[in-house]
Amino acid sequence: MAKVLTPRSENYSQWYNDLVLKADLAENSAVRGSMVIKPYGYAIWEKMQRVLDRMFKDTGHENAYFPLFIPKSFFSKEAAHVDGFAKECAVVTHYRLKNDPDGKGVVVDPDAKLEEELIVRPTSETIIWSTYKNWIQSYRDLPIKINQWANVVRWEMRTRLFLRTAEFLWQEGHTAHETKQEAIDETVTMINVYSEFAEKYMALPVLKGVKTENERFAGALDTYTIEALMQDGKALQSGTSHFLGQNFAKAFDVKFASKEGKEEYVWATSWGVSTRLMGALIMAHSDDNGLVLPPKLAPIQVVIVPIYRKEDEFKQVSEVAKGIVSKLRDMNIDVKFDDNDKKKPGWKFAEYELKGVPVRLAIGPRDVRNGTVEVARRDTLEKKVVPMEGVEKYIQTLLDDIQENIYNKAFDFRKENTTKVDSYDEFKKVLKEKGGFILAHWDGTAETEQRIKDETKATIRCIPLDSEPEEGKCMVTGKPSKQRVVFALAY
Amino acid sequence: MAKVLTPRSENYSQWYNDLVLKADLAENSAVRGSMVIKPYGYAIWEKMQRVLDRMFKDTGHENAYFPLFIPKSFFSKEAAHVDGFAKECAVVTHYRLKNDPDGKGVVVDPDAKLEEELIVRPTSETIIWSTYKNWIQSYRDLPIKINQWANVVRWEMRTRLFLRTAEFLWQEGHTAHETKQEAIDETVTMINVYSEFAEKYMALPVLKGVKTENERFAGALDTYTIEALMQDGKALQSGTSHFLGQNFAKAFDVKFASKEGKEEYVWATSWGVSTRLMGALIMAHSDDNGLVLPPKLAPIQVVIVPIYRKEDEFKQVSEVAKGIVSKLRDMNIDVKFDDNDKKKPGWKFAEYELKGVPVRLAIGPRDVRNGTVEVARRDTLEKKVVPMEGVEKYIQTLLDDIQENIYNKAFDFRKENTTKVDSYDEFKKVLKEKGGFILAHWDGTAETEQRIKDETKATIRCIPLDSEPEEGKCMVTGKPSKQRVVFALAY
Repeated sequence: MAKVLTPRSENYSQWYNDLVLKADLAENSAVRGSMVIKPYGYAIWEKMQRVLDRMFKDTGHENAYFPLFIPKSFFSKEAAHVDGFAKECAVVTHYRLKNDPDGKGVVVDPDAKLEEELIVRPTSETIIWSTYKNWIQSYRDLPIKINQWANVVRWEMRTRLFLRTAEFLWQEGHTAHETKQEAIDETVTMINVYSEFAEKYMALPVLKGVKTENERFAGALDTYTIEALMQDGKALQSGTSHFLGQNFAKAFDVKFASKEGKEEYVWATSWGVSTRLMGALIMAHSDDNGLVLPPKLAPIQVVIVPIYRKEDEFKQVSEVAKGIVSKLRDMNIDVKFDDNDKKKPGWKFAEYELKGVPVRLAIGPRDVRNGTVEVARRDTLEKKVVPMEGVEKYIQTLLDDIQENIYNKAFDFRKENTTKVDSYDEFKKVLKEKGGFILAHWDGTAETEQRIKDETKATIRCIPLDSEPEEGKCMVTGKPSKQRVVFALAY
Repeated sequence: MAKVLTPRSENYSQWYNDLVLKADLAENSAVRGSMVIKPYGYAIWEKMQRVLDRMFKDTGHENAYFPLFIPKSFFSKEAAHVDGFAKECAVVTHYRLKNDPDGKGVVVDPDAKLEEELIVRPTSETIIWSTYKNWIQSYRDLPIKINQWANVVRWEMRTRLFLRTAEFLWQEGHTAHETKQEAIDETVTMINVYSEFAEKYMALPVLKGVKTENERFAGALDTYTIEALMQDGKALQSGTSHFLGQNFAKAFDVKFASKEGKEEYVWATSWGVSTRLMGALIMAHSDDNGLVLPPKLAPIQVVIVPIYRKEDEFKQVSEVAKGIVSKLRDMNIDVKFDDNDKKKPGWKFAEYELKGVPVRLAIGPRDVRNGTVEVARRDTLEKKVVPMEGVEKYIQTLLDDIQENIYNKAFDFRKENTTKVDSYDEFKKVLKEKGGFILAHWDGTAETEQRIKDETKATIRCIPLDSEPEEGKCMVTGKPSKQRVVFALAY
C-alpha cells in the first residue's frame, strides 16, 4: 500500500496537514480561516473536554455561559487588553438582510445598522467582568469560580488547522477573589491542572513557567504557561493561566465590601486551553504511518478485525470477537468490532494505523482453533500472538504500557532536544542545527529579548517554575542573571 | 418569609421572569437580547445535554463542529430558506478595529471591509450541505448522521429569557441519506427521541405531530414537532425534526452514485432542541414557591440541612449526614450537605425550595438520638419523619415517585385542558375562557388556518400523529375534514 502521508523528514509541515486531512480530523471550510472539525477529530476533543471538565469541577469550578457578542466600547475599558485583542476581530455592524433590489440574492439592509457595533468575542474578560459587577457586593459573594466552554474568533491572516484558526473552540475560566494571594494561588492551581492533564492524559511532557512581560496576555500581571516540544524542535504553547490583578475590576468598577468593611477592588484570574491542544497531540506523537494516540484520549482504544474467507469462518470468528467486545466494554474500554465485509483486512489495518487506534486485534479461523489472538500495538507497531484466555486483562495492561511508552518517548525526545548554552554564538548554532528548548542566561530586559527575537526568531517560552537558581551572565549583554530561561522557535 | 415571586394567578409572565432571576438560572446581559446562563441554570442544561447526547449516540449519530460564520451567498441558494432565516440575522462586515483618530476608544477600520459579508449562523443547513458536497460521492459514503452542539443567533426584537433570545444554545442534527424512506424514518426516529426525552427526563407530556405548511421549517417538506402545554394554557413548541427532501442537496449540488450506478440527489433531515427547553421545564412544573425540578434533571437531587445550636450538636449531626452523603453518592445520587454556618436553616429551606431541589433532609440532635431523619419533598411540600436505617433506599424510591408524580400532574393538567370543539363560536369561547389544546376539524387549507390566526391568534400546533381518524366538518368553512388538529395560543 502506498504511503498516504508526506514523510516528516521531507516536509514536517506538509506531513502535519496530510495527517489532519487523511485521518479525518479536520478540514478547511468555505469560510476563510474557519475549520470543520470532523467526527473523528471531534471525538478526541470530546474526550479531552470530559477529562478537563471533571478536573475543573474537582477544583471547585462551575460552568456557565456568557454572550458571544461584546459591545465595542467594552474593549476600550482596559488599555492593554484593547491593544492585544480588539484589533483583529469580527465586527457585527448590521442585523438584517433584504432582497437585492436588482433581484440577485440578498444584500445588507442599510436601515438595520447597529448603533454600537458588536465584536464577536476573541476572549470574554470584558463581558464577564461587566456581569460580575452585578454579582459582587460583599466578600460573601466571593470567590466566583466559573468556566465557560465556547467558540471564539480572532481574525488570523495565516491559519493552520487546529494550530491557528479564525474560529476555535476553547474553555475559559474566569475567577474573582477577595485577596491577591488567593488569586495567585488560583492561577497556579490551574496551570497545574493543565500540566497534569497534558502529562497524564495527552502523554505530553510540558515545561511549566512564567511568561516574560513581552509575551504576557494583554491585561495580565503574570501569565503562567505550559510549553510542549514538537518533533520538529519547535515549541507549542499549550495552555495559559493569567493573574489579572485588579485590572479588570478597575476597568469595570467591580468593588466589594471586605470583612473589615472597606471597599476594595476584586482580584481576578483567567485561564484557557483550546482546540490547539489537538495540534499538540497530533504533532507530538504521530509518525509517518499516521496518528499515534495515547489510549486515554483515543475514541477507539481497541479495534478487532476479523480474518475470514467463508461465511462459516466469519461466524466462528465473530462469536469469539463479540465475547471480547463485551468483556472490554465491561472494563470501560472503547472497542470497535469492524465487521464491514466490503473492506479487506489489509485496508482496515492501514486505516486504523492511520487513525492511531492504540491496539488492534486480528482473529482468524486458526486463532479460533488454537485459542489465540494476534495483538498489534500502534506505538511500536509490534505484533504478538497471545492466548485468548485472559486477553482482556492483557489488553488493559497493554493500554497502560502504551500510554506510558508514548509519554516516555516524548520525554526522552525533549531531554535530547534541550540544550544548555553559554554564549550567543552557541545559541545561534544550536538553534539552527538542532532546535529544541535552549536554556540560557538572559539579563531580564525586554530590549535584549527583542534583539534575540529579531536576530534569530527565537522567543523566551518561559522562565521555568521548577528550575534551580543559577548565577550567570546574559549570553548577549554579559549582564548578571540568576536563572536560565527557556528559548525556542515556536508555533 | 415574604414571597419572592409574583404569584402565577396574578401575572404568569412576571412569575416566570421572577423565577428565572431569583432561582439564579439566567439574566439579561449588556448585549440586547443575549442572556447570561448562570451556573445553576447551566447545570440543568448540562444534565439535559448529557442525556440527549447519549440518546443521539445510541441512535448512531456522531458529533462534529462546523463554522459559526456562513457566507451571505449561501443563504440565497435555497429559496424558502432565505426567506425564513437570512433576514433577521447578525451580519459581520469588517474584520478589524483601529484607534479612533480622535483618541476616543476604537472605531471600525474602513479598510478592513470583507468582500462578502458573513452571517452568524441562525441554523447550519447551508454551511453543512456545502461541506457534505465534498464528503459524498457514492452510496458507500451514506448515510452521514452528524449532530452539532452550538450557539446560534437570530435577531429577535422581543426577547424573553430562555424562550426567545437573540443568541441561544442548541444542538442541530444534519443527516444525509440514499433514499427518501430512509430520510423519513430518520426524521421520525428523532422526533421519537425528543418525545422520549421530554416525557422520561423532563417529566413533560408532549403531543407528537406534523406541522401544517404554514408552520413548517423554511426549506422542509415536512416538520415533525413535539408540543407541550404550559400552566397558563399556552403551547410551547419544544423540539422539531425536519424532512428536507432533496432541497438542500439540489441547492448545493450534492449527488451520489447509487448502487445501480445512477447519479441521484441526496435526501436530508435536520432536527434540533435548544435552551428553550429550559423555559418549558421551568414553566411546566414550577409553583409560587419556586422551581419544581424532575429529579432526573436536578443538579442537586437531595440536600441535607443540619439543625443545631452548639458545636458538639453540629459534630454529631455532621457525622450522620456525611454517612448518608457517602451512601447516596455510591448510588449516583447528586447530594449536597449544606454545612454553611452563616445561613440559618429557615433561609436554607426557602432557598432550596426556590431552586427546586426534589428532596430535602433535615437532621437535628433529636434525630440523631432517635435514629430518624426528616424528609421533605419539593413537589408536594410534604414532610415526613423516617428511620435513618435504610433512608438511602427510601430516598431512591422517593426520587422515582417524585419524577412520576410530576409527570402525572402535568399529564392530568393537559388532559383537563384539552378540549374538543365542533363550532367556531365554541372554539373562540374555550380559547378565551380556558385556553389549552383545542381539538377541532379544519379543512386543510392555508387560508382557513390564516383566518383563524388573524381572528383569534391561535395557531395549529400540529396534526397529531397518534390520533384516530374521524370524519368531520371544518369548524369555520364546513368543508370536510378527516382528522382533528390541535389548536392553541403559543409561545
